[in-house]
Amino acid sequence: METRGPEVIRDKEAMRKWSRSVRSQGKTIGFVPTMGYLHEGHLSLVRESRKLADVTVVSIYVNPGQFSPTEDLSTYPSDFAGDLAKLSAVPGGVDVVFHPKNLYDYGVGEEGVTGSRRIGGGGAVSCVENGGLGHETWVRVEGLEKGLCGKSRPVFFRGVVTIVTKLFNIVEPDVAFFGKKDYQQWRIIQRMVRDLDFGIKIVGSEIVREQDGLAMSSRNVRLSAEEREKALSISRSLAKAKAFAAEGQTNCTELKDMIIQEIVGASGRVDYVEIVEQESLEPVEKIKSPVVVCVAAWFGTVRLIDNIEISGFA
Amino acid sequence: METRGPEVIRDKEAMRKWSRSVRSQGKTIGFVPTMGYLHEGHLSLVRESRKLADVTVVSIYVNPGQFSPTEDLSTYPSDFAGDLAKLSAVPGGVDVVFHPKNLYDYGVGEEGVTGSRRIGGGGAVSCVENGGLGHETWVRVEGLEKGLCGKSRPVFFRGVVTIVTKLFNIVEPDVAFFGKKDYQQWRIIQRMVRDLDFGIKIVGSEIVREQDGLAMSSRNVRLSAEEREKALSISRSLAKAKAFAAEGQTNCTELKDMIIQEIVGASGRVDYVEIVEQESLEPVEKIKSPVVVCVAAWFGTVRLIDNIEISGFA
Repeated sequence: METRGPEVIRDKEAMRKWSRSVRSQGKTIGFVPTMGYLHEGHLSLVRESRKLADVTVVSIYVNPGQFSPTEDLSTYPSDFAGDLAKLSAVPGGVDVVFHPKNLYDYGVGEEGVTGSRRIGGGGAVSCVENGGLGHETWVRVEGLEKGLCGKSRPVFFRGVVTIVTKLFNIVEPDVAFFGKKDYQQWRIIQRMVRDLDFGIKIVGSEIVREQDGLAMSSRNVRLSAEEREKALSISRSLAKAKAFAAEGQTNCTELKDMIIQEIVGASGRVDYVEIVEQESLEPVEKIKSPVVVCVAAWFGTVRLIDNIEISGFA
Repeated sequence: METRGPEVIRDKEAMRKWSRSVRSQGKTIGFVPTMGYLHEGHLSLVRESRKLADVTVVSIYVNPGQFSPTEDLSTYPSDFAGDLAKLSAVPGGVDVVFHPKNLYDYGVGEEGVTGSRRIGGGGAVSCVENGGLGHETWVRVEGLEKGLCGKSRPVFFRGVVTIVTKLFNIVEPDVAFFGKKDYQQWRIIQRMVRDLDFGIKIVGSEIVREQDGLAMSSRNVRLSAEEREKALSISRSLAKAKAFAAEGQTNCTELKDMIIQEIVGASGRVDYVEIVEQESLEPVEKIKSPVVVCVAAWFGTVRLIDNIEISGFA
């Protein structure tokens, strides 16, 4: 059986033109932004998009704006050919893969001035040197970006929200899909869309896990077999916390301590364990309303995140 | 002769629906965002929009997000009926006046949580108190917002850029019009649109002046007759600076000193006089390439701004 591969668009004006042509036919556009190296988690978003929208666009773009200079931009895994094959194998496929070169390169300005190829303001690529004509606009969700991952990754959400804004303006979708594995990211995008009045519906999709419970992530490939085994302490302790809460344990300090002990016991290095309200992401001391338990921890050189929602409670 | 008044839309979803319906007919939308109390400067933008786009939308919204607590939000002049009459009198008229109530009021959230009616982060309305569900997303053009008016009005451009982003997302225009009287604002919006990949063309329109040279502004109405007379020192000294430059005076310190003397001589209080490169807004010491001379000064309780571009030079 022959599978038709998606159309690959690399130019942003061509992308916008495609979207506008599709919308002028009265069709709705579903959008799945990714950094590539696709796994089952991404593909579940694609399948959801195919259900909710007439056409589906997947973007593959490793965004330098969300990595700090010390982070793993240069080692972030990629496999464009493999990604295309995976997308083609989804029943129905996807319509377009948007795979731009450099979304921060503005080339020659409208008044003949050459734009910078660098990104200002402390991202992975350092400051602009040509008289301030490089990228300098950032979108920030100032409250939600502070806690959880924002503490150890100070430019991360600024970079994510800004690139998502750019991609939304280029792709002009009706609905966009984000995985709940990146829970804070999903909530931040949702808030940004509300606060900036984007006419786009944001759907958060459930975490997809490996058979043994490990939350799927493009970074998992960099775990050794031993690290991977130990990293199961994250999902195992999160499931345990949910079970304890169902049995009536509502004291967050005790639940967090249990999780920390499991992870440290497996020689993981905990970045944070937090129990927060689901929408405001404010920490809570006692579980009285829907919360999410969020974890970030290092195994070897790989930083993993995971979470579990607790919505029913005693 | 009967003039047909514009349709007034107050609800943002109704506005977006109108725009999408118009675009689905293949028509282009021109957009003129204003804070109302319209004068000839605004009307020149409307006329330009009528030339360049199929339909024209004017928004009238006094944006609390761009006033600091000590600024003149409560005394900002308004005359909605008068504004409608002026817009109706423009040959061809305008198609829609978008006049929303409170663009920072998000009402009941999607998960049943009531949004805040306040704006966080140091704007005219102070912090959010309901668990962080109020407006907290801000768009900043981090370099360009710092100089000129940004020094004395630290939240101003953040507020302007954020409301313009919101309005762009609601109105979804093809082309938007800004007056060059607010020169820094125009350049900041232009940069924001480039950096965030909005599919919108930004047009900067020439300053419209009263017969005696005073740049038109909604705030002029608050000048006494005597203050108004004295405020002419701004436009007079700017014109003189341009004439001096044409005669070969390229030393910016001397040009700025001349302007300061004229304004102070007319008992104005200078906020700043700057000569900057037109696109980067970087100060220059000697005029060698196109610049703009920018002035902000107080007469009585009114802060006025004005500028003049110098593009030809010795």
